[in-house]
Amino acid sequence: MLTDLPVEQLATYRSSQTLPEDFADFWAGTLAEAASHDVDVRLREVPTGLTTVVTYDVTFRGYAGQDIRAWLRVPAGASGPLPTVVQYVAHGGGRGHALASLLWASAGFAHFQMDTRGQGSGWSIGETPDPAVAPPAVPGVITRGIGDPADYYYRRFLTDAVRAVDAARALDVVDPDRVAVFGVSQGGGAAIAVAGLRTDVAAVVSLVPFLCDFPRATRITDGYPYREIADYLRVHRDDVARVHRTLSYFDAVNFARRATAPALFSVALMDATCPPSTVYAAYHEYQGPREMIVWEYNGHEGGGIDDEARALAFLRARLGHPG
Amino acid sequence: MLTDLPVEQLATYRSSQTLPEDFADFWAGTLAEAASHDVDVRLREVPTGLTTVVTYDVTFRGYAGQDIRAWLRVPAGASGPLPTVVQYVAHGGGRGHALASLLWASAGFAHFQMDTRGQGSGWSIGETPDPAVAPPAVPGVITRGIGDPADYYYRRFLTDAVRAVDAARALDVVDPDRVAVFGVSQGGGAAIAVAGLRTDVAAVVSLVPFLCDFPRATRITDGYPYREIADYLRVHRDDVARVHRTLSYFDAVNFARRATAPALFSVALMDATCPPSTVYAAYHEYQGPREMIVWEYNGHEGGGIDDEARALAFLRARLGHPG
Amino acid sequence: MLTDLPVEQLATYRSSQTLPEDFADFWAGTLAEAASHDVDVRLREVPTGLTTVVTYDVTFRGYAGQDIRAWLRVPAGASGPLPTVVQYVAHGGGRGHALASLLWASAGFAHFQMDTRGQGSGWSIGETPDPAVAPPAVPGVITRGIGDPADYYYRRFLTDAVRAVDAARALDVVDPDRVAVFGVSQGGGAAIAVAGLRTDVAAVVSLVPFLCDFPRATRITDGYPYREIADYLRVHRDDVARVHRTLSYFDAVNFARRATAPALFSVALMDATCPPSTVYAAYHEYQGPREMIVWEYNGHEGGGIDDEARALAFLRARLGHPG
Amino acid sequence: MLTDLPVEQLATYRSSQTLPEDFADFWAGTLAEAASHDVDVRLREVPTGLTTVVTYDVTFRGYAGQDIRAWLRVPAGASGPLPTVVQYVAHGGGRGHALASLLWASAGFAHFQMDTRGQGSGWSIGETPDPAVAPPAVPGVITRGIGDPADYYYRRFLTDAVRAVDAARALDVVDPDRVAVFGVSQGGGAAIAVAGLRTDVAAVVSLVPFLCDFPRATRITDGYPYREIADYLRVHRDDVARVHRTLSYFDAVNFARRATAPALFSVALMDATCPPSTVYAAYHEYQGPREMIVWEYNGHEGGGIDDEARALAFLRARLGHPG
Amino acid sequence: MLTDLPVEQLATYRSSQTLPEDFADFWAGTLAEAASHDVDVRLREVPTGLTTVVTYDVTFRGYAGQDIRAWLRVPAGASGPLPTVVQYVAHGGGRGHALASLLWASAGFAHFQMDTRGQGSGWSIGETPDPAVAPPAVPGVITRGIGDPADYYYRRFLTDAVRAVDAARALDVVDPDRVAVFGVSQGGGAAIAVAGLRTDVAAVVSLVPFLCDFPRATRITDGYPYREIADYLRVHRDDVARVHRTLSYFDAVNFARRATAPALFSVALMDATCPPSTVYAAYHEYQGPREMIVWEYNGHEGGGIDDEARALAFLRARLGHPG
Amino acid sequence: MLTDLPVEQLATYRSSQTLPEDFADFWAGTLAEAASHDVDVRLREVPTGLTTVVTYDVTFRGYAGQDIRAWLRVPAGASGPLPTVVQYVAHGGGRGHALASLLWASAGFAHFQMDTRGQGSGWSIGETPDPAVAPPAVPGVITRGIGDPADYYYRRFLTDAVRAVDAARALDVVDPDRVAVFGVSQGGGAAIAVAGLRTDVAAVVSLVPFLCDFPRATRITDGYPYREIADYLRVHRDDVARVHRTLSYFDAVNFARRATAPALFSVALMDATCPPSTVYAAYHEYQGPREMIVWEYNGHEGGGIDDEARALAFLRARLGHPG
Repeated sequence: MLTDLPVEQLATYRSSQTLPEDFADFWAGTLAEAASHDVDVRLREVPTGLTTVVTYDVTFRGYAGQDIRAWLRVPAGASGPLPTVVQYVAHGGGRGHALASLLWASAGFAHFQMDTRGQGSGWSIGETPDPAVAPPAVPGVITRGIGDPADYYYRRFLTDAVRAVDAARALDVVDPDRVAVFGVSQGGGAAIAVAGLRTDVAAVVSLVPFLCDFPRATRITDGYPYREIADYLRVHRDDVARVHRTLSYFDAVNFARRATAPALFSVALMDATCPPSTVYAAYHEYQGPREMIVWEYNGHEGGGIDDEARALAFLRARLGHPG
Repeated sequence: MLTDLPVEQLATYRSSQTLPEDFADFWAGTLAEAASHDVDVRLREVPTGLTTVVTYDVTFRGYAGQDIRAWLRVPAGASGPLPTVVQYVAHGGGRGHALASLLWASAGFAHFQMDTRGQGSGWSIGETPDPAVAPPAVPGVITRGIGDPADYYYRRFLTDAVRAVDAARALDVVDPDRVAVFGVSQGGGAAIAVAGLRTDVAAVVSLVPFLCDFPRATRITDGYPYREIADYLRVHRDDVARVHRTLSYFDAVNFARRATAPALFSVALMDATCPPSTVYAAYHEYQGPREMIVWEYNGHEGGGIDDEARALAFLRARLGHPG
Repeated sequence: MLTDLPVEQLATYRSSQTLPEDFADFWAGTLAEAASHDVDVRLREVPTGLTTVVTYDVTFRGYAGQDIRAWLRVPAGASGPLPTVVQYVAHGGGRGHALASLLWASAGFAHFQMDTRGQGSGWSIGETPDPAVAPPAVPGVITRGIGDPADYYYRRFLTDAVRAVDAARALDVVDPDRVAVFGVSQGGGAAIAVAGLRTDVAAVVSLVPFLCDFPRATRITDGYPYREIADYLRVHRDDVARVHRTLSYFDAVNFARRATAPALFSVALMDATCPPSTVYAAYHEYQGPREMIVWEYNGHEGGGIDDEARALAFLRARLGHPG
Repeated sequence: MLTDLPVEQLATYRSSQTLPEDFADFWAGTLAEAASHDVDVRLREVPTGLTTVVTYDVTFRGYAGQDIRAWLRVPAGASGPLPTVVQYVAHGGGRGHALASLLWASAGFAHFQMDTRGQGSGWSIGETPDPAVAPPAVPGVITRGIGDPADYYYRRFLTDAVRAVDAARALDVVDPDRVAVFGVSQGGGAAIAVAGLRTDVAAVVSLVPFLCDFPRATRITDGYPYREIADYLRVHRDDVARVHRTLSYFDAVNFARRATAPALFSVALMDATCPPSTVYAAYHEYQGPREMIVWEYNGHEGGGIDDEARALAFLRARLGHPG
Repeated sequence: MLTDLPVEQLATYRSSQTLPEDFADFWAGTLAEAASHDVDVRLREVPTGLTTVVTYDVTFRGYAGQDIRAWLRVPAGASGPLPTVVQYVAHGGGRGHALASLLWASAGFAHFQMDTRGQGSGWSIGETPDPAVAPPAVPGVITRGIGDPADYYYRRFLTDAVRAVDAARALDVVDPDRVAVFGVSQGGGAAIAVAGLRTDVAAVVSLVPFLCDFPRATRITDGYPYREIADYLRVHRDDVARVHRTLSYFDAVNFARRATAPALFSVALMDATCPPSTVYAAYHEYQGPREMIVWEYNGHEGGGIDDEARALAFLRARLGHPG
Repeated sequence: MLTDLPVEQLATYRSSQTLPEDFADFWAGTLAEAASHDVDVRLREVPTGLTTVVTYDVTFRGYAGQDIRAWLRVPAGASGPLPTVVQYVAHGGGRGHALASLLWASAGFAHFQMDTRGQGSGWSIGETPDPAVAPPAVPGVITRGIGDPADYYYRRFLTDAVRAVDAARALDVVDPDRVAVFGVSQGGGAAIAVAGLRTDVAAVVSLVPFLCDFPRATRITDGYPYREIADYLRVHRDDVARVHRTLSYFDAVNFARRATAPALFSVALMDATCPPSTVYAAYHEYQGPREMIVWEYNGHEGGGIDDEARALAFLRARLGHPG
């Protein structure tokens, strides 16, 4: 059943999220610190048994110069430079198995799939730790360090995401002018964030994005992972304002206000994990050319493989046909 | 938590399933009728946007000569004859989207993925109807026609599965001596059945198989789809013996008693859908060379992509390296 | 708790369901085809151990001339012609056990209880199959053939329901001028449909009806069986418009727009299976004299035996006292 | 799935319940006190709209001479004396609506359906209060007064049940030599109890009985109402022995050890409310001729209408054909 | 997630509850009858092993002069007269263990914790029975006697609550001019009721109160214990008006309309047990000085220990610092 | 219902947990490193409004010299040295609110309640972070660093627990010869561990302990937090042996094999969080005088306040009466 506003009201819904005055400074400082470390991309080809796709185990330096893992998959025999998809994975998983996620390389793209620090035991394996002081938090990463923007988990994760684009662009097989960012749920939120933090992204695909419109999301859904924040505030009763201040630095609504690359969004009207009004909240603020795919009867699976097919067509149109 | 016997007892568990006297005749007659229709394989290439894999929409004649759909995926530029994987899909789904399931073709195999009659709205789309008189049944296919072996849904489905091997072997790109059958859950049960019904299958991969040991399965799990049978018998209280007679013609335990191709099984000790004793029930009767992968802490997802990686290694060893 | 609009808003709610241009032609053609087969009512008295009620096992020809079963129960010693209740049963069940449903015959009516094709393993037994090509569907009948009005399950079921009135009227014990249609949930939806498809029904009782206002019902409840449609559209994402077109031919809202017999409805304000706005959607379009029983604190059980007591008083008043 | 021991072990299971030394004295004293009040049966015919069954609202004196309600239903025109079914209803309900439960009268029996004190708001209406000091208890009647046999709810209820037989036998329409006791679940437990407390009952039907083998029942099921006892002991941690002593005076296992009338039991192997071993516990102690109907795939619904059909055949055979 | 109106609408929400014309007379008569019995407070010191707090087992006479239990806890060595907290406990529990609830005595108050008649097996032990005729009711006390204000459970319980203040004031250690009433949930509702029924209460603390705004509460939540009323009306379908008339005599909204002592309330915006609009319903009618603590992300736990800390500060300010 | 073996089998159950050869060395090295940092206890009195108890905010150095918080509560006016209870809190919480947990100080003990690193947002607040590299893990601390004993969360937590005893003993108000360790669930597991790691603990109270018998616990319960380990192994399928090796260094079964202080345990036979066999696993290995409190009908709440009352009596007997 519908989990949020009826579709007519979604069309006009605007988020109440505010932009912190020092938002730009906060991120400029954060990214500058990260950029002070060489991105230092290291590749190691891994045997997979596949014949049409070559796979590399990638390590690069992300937040604070910490090592971040990724997979690079390219079509066998491709000489490049190729149009490239940088992917951020959904919450709870990591970059997963080398044999998974063959779509983009099979379609002629270089596919750079970033691992997620500290995640990767929920539904797929990750290999990247999150070195940090971990204050008391609700189980999961969503409230790790939520008391202060400087300590918040997503500061580290989104910085990694920005550096992944640098890492990809540093590779010979990648055409630096044709790098798209792509993700589903948490990955879709990250794609918007990256588009808001740099100007050299050629296209954005953000499917049923998470990390959008925290003031509303934390109040209208019981679904995890947004609910981790409500669970935290249930115990930390006096920290409501402080926590929402932290979140305002990481809300895709605020990144969308700065993003200009062409973007494809999707939303599902029966999504209880990322309620549709929160997706529209980011979409309506988005400053670049934008399209929304609406799935009327889907939950958080959104369009699934149909979303990927649309994304493939969108990126072929935006980045040029690879094949 | 463990859903069934402790592992030491699984090692010695044997099913109480009996073999009907006319089992061989029943299936010989059924397959002879199907073979009286030309398999009539029709291929149509479909545009997918992929560059490394070519995909065909396949139609062939299955049970009663009825049209059955499938996907054929082959590595771009492959001339064949190729080692081939015939796949039967899991319960509730159909052959799905053309863009999905790229593993086998990316690994150099021809991949023939059969659609499932009357299924394909649960988690992936199917295109093949099930033309039949539908007596009163519990929602779902598991009890459709369960009153008589001649009318039972799985008579039609398993005949389609046998004919899919004929259809694959009729293709130029397929090496008829190197055809393996592969499946997960319902597909894994079907793979055992096909191995028990024909002698020209080169290898079998049966992951967390369904359709095994109905006398026990229907009593020890609350999980669907086995529970559809219990739900049926809850209302049709006087039909217990009749229903179990029907099921004995379709139990992988009985097919395993006739199968001789090398086989790889997997089982998960926390699987509530296909409890591990029922998987061992089939495994212990299997007449060919056999291996069992045991996942101690998994549910019905079994080994997931890890199972697929093992299956890839197994089939590369059995059918020859494609690449 | 309330599952839908507050009661004041229910009073003014109107459905958005549209009437297909060829609705009348579609049904005229469908019923004409059915009428081309003789209704051919066959009765067989069954021993029940009862002394006050005589029970017959009935077979008649419904959609496409296919055999449909029913029970006929009459007061022992009744010579007729009697006022008659034609009953359609609720979703998932069949005509059930001969010993059940003694109310109407004990009250002096002839009671003609139609079996439901392909249903009857959920909570009571059915004996009538549904002979049809079954395309991929969500488990259950609600999405069987939903891609086209000509193939849809409810085309067959509602035609049976119309023919059941013909079958009843063909019996000596039945007074053809005093035939009422009666049902709960799916049966209540069928009663409205029959009232919209023929002019010789003397009264209608439609309790907490199903099959009403699909555009709203499929969006505002998570409850089955409406949810089967949402489940279907979750996978068949591109078929939303097509499916709703099919449903418009079977929506009680559209039948109510043509029905003129006196009608008694009931609705429950805490009903999550058939939300109250959808019941009011049909009620507000109903063209004959109408009454609504409102149960403020009930779910889909509605008024239960209290609804039956009201229905008995209503039908005694409309059809004449039997005793 | 099976909720208890496998069927072979059920065949030999014996309860650990002990018989209190003063069990006979306790009940002799209790019933003597009740018998000191005239049973004082009062009948009032109620209009129902039925033509084949006549219904009376009955009041008689039960425990402590308190008024207990009942329905009496007899076939219209019956002069009697009739074979008679005294029914005790299942937990949570009362005697219900006058229009319900037409089976026994329609089959030619006098049907005396006793209301249950203090129950009757869960699924059907009751009219009889339970005047008593109510110590702290888990919501529901199961632990009301459980600290002492003299105060326990079931002392009052079972005394009512015994007196209902006296009340029925006092009626002209009832043949006092052909009175059977009948019940489902709580009613089935009461039927065994009555059979253990008096010698003039002609037959017993106890379907999926409750109130059996408390030592085991309270430990092996999570289902209510047995779980009310576990909930009580969860808080009253030091009262385990005291509570089990109280229960021993009300366990059908102990009544069965004294009962000799021919009895029909039913049991369901997937019953989580009244686990099958507890039913066998009473059955195996039963001292009269006994039959057990076993439903392999049913839960607490047991045989439902099929059980009633069997009960009808059993009582026709034991009490003589009424019609 | 929010369980009720958004916070702006809560600010203006007013209950539709009406005040019965004879409300004042009903309660004047009820309390006069209780006052006709001497309150007869009896104390017995109990050994606890504590060194800083002395504990007494208290018995006094409540409704109809029936004995009601309580704990009295005072700081060791206190000579009094002390500021005093009379506490009513939450639904399902009793006065609990002597070792629990040490806060108020440790803070220098006399703490008079009243047991709840007939409750006290759900989460803490009670010792006080509810002697009454118990008509059929949903399990639990909420619908016990709900058919008539004179018979309703809460008439007895609230009379006990009023008499507890008399009992406390009769003690030497208690300063009669500094008695506050305090409670959480059911206890919070009782505190408002007592404040509305007598003028000598010095302060009121009502945390996430129950017993507020029945017309709305019974319709907007599925949570127990309000749901017991809906469950009752689901079966007693014709009693809706009668039950709501009874409830109007016990609604904290109506007591608030008469209460003038300074009051501290708390409310939780994600409370599904006592939805926030129902708390505001009482708060907005409250006639004395009032403060509301709002917990945005809490359920029915409300502010928990944080609420108690606020209550301690509030009562220290209102009643004078004890230490 | 019982969640584990019947009580007779619990009496003889022995764990299969093995003792790593270097267990003693591992812990000796770990504790030596911690002891190389001064424990550096810092106290700050906090205002609470209490008059009978004085509360201090404590900071001391734990694992790697990192700051750990605690509460110290002492009876007002106590001069010491006092018998002392060092408490470790249950999983998910922190040291909580200063106003909570007044029992021990009110009974005349010094009460040293250690905060739990990285926990303390689930049901009570913590203030102590867990500074560490956090590899991918299931949400929660249970699998944080589980790949290696050196990295595992519980290495840090249990070292803190040992150091808390040093911190307490360093205080003037504490009698170093009368220090007991106490805890419920995770705290109970920690108490056993501390008793196994040092010889100067005067008594141990371990209520329904967690951290016991991982080989069995991870296989027989679905309950969190043990299930976090199963969830981890569900994804990290190849790490079963490695993870169990890590856990063997932290299993209370192995600590019990070295512990000699008098100990009081409790166990609940319906506990699904810490199944009773796992508690008996530690109890049966315990080398000191030991007592077990058995709660037959309780879940993980165990004896609750009744357990605390027993613990109070036990510690008064072992440590001398404080008052």
